[in-house]
Amino acid sequence: MNKWVIIFGSLALDSVETPFGKRKNILGGSATHAALSASYFTTPVIISAVGEDFPHKHTQFLKKNRINLNNVEVKKGKTFSWEARYGDNPNEREVLSTRVNVLADYSPFLLPEHRKIKYVFLANNPPASQMLLLNQLTSTELVVWDTMTYWIDRFPKEILEILPRVDIALFNDSEARHFSGETNLTKAGKKILAKGVKKGVVIKKGEHGAFLFTKSFILHLPAYPLEEVKDPTGAGDSFAGGLIGYLAKMGKVNDENLKRGMAYGTIMASLTVEEFGTDRFKKVTKKEIDKRFEELKKIIHF
Amino acid sequence: MNKWVIIFGSLALDSVETPFGKRKNILGGSATHAALSASYFTTPVIISAVGEDFPHKHTQFLKKNRINLNNVEVKKGKTFSWEARYGDNPNEREVLSTRVNVLADYSPFLLPEHRKIKYVFLANNPPASQMLLLNQLTSTELVVWDTMTYWIDRFPKEILEILPRVDIALFNDSEARHFSGETNLTKAGKKILAKGVKKGVVIKKGEHGAFLFTKSFILHLPAYPLEEVKDPTGAGDSFAGGLIGYLAKMGKVNDENLKRGMAYGTIMASLTVEEFGTDRFKKVTKKEIDKRFEELKKIIHF
Repeated sequence: MNKWVIIFGSLALDSVETPFGKRKNILGGSATHAALSASYFTTPVIISAVGEDFPHKHTQFLKKNRINLNNVEVKKGKTFSWEARYGDNPNEREVLSTRVNVLADYSPFLLPEHRKIKYVFLANNPPASQMLLLNQLTSTELVVWDTMTYWIDRFPKEILEILPRVDIALFNDSEARHFSGETNLTKAGKKILAKGVKKGVVIKKGEHGAFLFTKSFILHLPAYPLEEVKDPTGAGDSFAGGLIGYLAKMGKVNDENLKRGMAYGTIMASLTVEEFGTDRFKKVTKKEIDKRFEELKKIIHF
Repeated sequence: MNKWVIIFGSLALDSVETPFGKRKNILGGSATHAALSASYFTTPVIISAVGEDFPHKHTQFLKKNRINLNNVEVKKGKTFSWEARYGDNPNEREVLSTRVNVLADYSPFLLPEHRKIKYVFLANNPPASQMLLLNQLTSTELVVWDTMTYWIDRFPKEILEILPRVDIALFNDSEARHFSGETNLTKAGKKILAKGVKKGVVIKKGEHGAFLFTKSFILHLPAYPLEEVKDPTGAGDSFAGGLIGYLAKMGKVNDENLKRGMAYGTIMASLTVEEFGTDRFKKVTKKEIDKRFEELKKIIHF
């Protein structure tokens, strides 16, 4: 359990429409994508709740992928559901509906045996819930944290309170611009870092790659080049899962591992978006992941 | 003269407005930016025409930067002028006016002593004029070529005729999408390459970096991270100048040099946009360029 990863996020039923097709009520959610991605490096422990409608086959699929679901509550009511439409530009989407359902009054509760886990990904959630979960952990070594504009606008005080407890804060480009008030992403990254994040700020730019800003260096990786992005949903959470999964596996958070973790995050995101929902993870192997990792190295080498 | 570079493009008087200020009638033009950039690696020979209003100080400045102007005609009338406005997003601009003036009925004529030069950059120009210039050269080893949507739409036949004589074709992202009919840039790059370009297709993405597609590899470099982009004008031509200047200096077009040329192009573009017009080249040194080149290597290393 020394190298396991806590993942606090949603298990969801997603309906998406993209230029490549439509899917209804497929397995989705931030915890799902992050955990599947992290499962190639370590054992992810999901903290979440589902409704009684959550299909048994989804539970089976997650378990088959070495994901620990002992902290997942099954509550009366319906599973969190989300509906979105993407156009030709995979960086832009229209969210048609978000039904929080059983997550509306959910408080995370961590089994005593999981409280000593050192690696934590706090996926997008109300900052107060994130804080509740964080306070149940006794030995954190790396906290990776995500949020969205919705929470930044509604709970600015709570956001500023949680930041100093976060090692790596994740934003997409528009969130980073909004939170920092800066259009230029290099300025935005540095400004957010100065708000008190412990180690680094990641700005994800979808098809344009990702930045990492730390006090001592900047890393900028392009995305792994894909000819078809079938469903961009979950790219950011897969990125986070790859990053924290790799770091947990290595058991040491130094600059080298952080950079390699960013590259594994990039690769896991590239895999996720190649098929709808979690379909790509029904067949991907660790060997394929490592091959893309080496390819990414070549693609940027000069 | 063995390693000199022919640059066929415009010498212009630009008026630009950006969030950082306004400038009127400053030195601009595709040949200006490409030649200044190439001048750090080799001797650029500009092929162009100016009007009688072209300020003597601009001629002096270009000559001081080791640029050969013996093929620049001074014609009766006014110099090409161009006016644009940029908003917060440096990748988007509104062109307010383009006055072709003396370039309207200009035919390039190359002095006999320059016809054996092997490295050529055909900046944005009507494809028929580009062909005229190309036909005056006897020993080309590398032809780098630029165009824009305006010519693609008006002279599709001529564009397809010139492509097989081009080693490296340059496009920005929207031009590549338009020309290929593909939204996905990886698909676009491969499709354009298949139209008959000899060596490679470059897709420039402004602040998001640049792609190079060849038959045997893909290179994807991020932009050099800048906190302030004062004036994006000329970034693409500076990129081209750095690329061809470096390749001419090396005297050999192999994969390694192409990749390093892409990186030098990236660096030259990053310098250009830091000040209005050509101001940055009033002080930049080769040492500073090489330092950024090494920094770019570090920024992408994992």
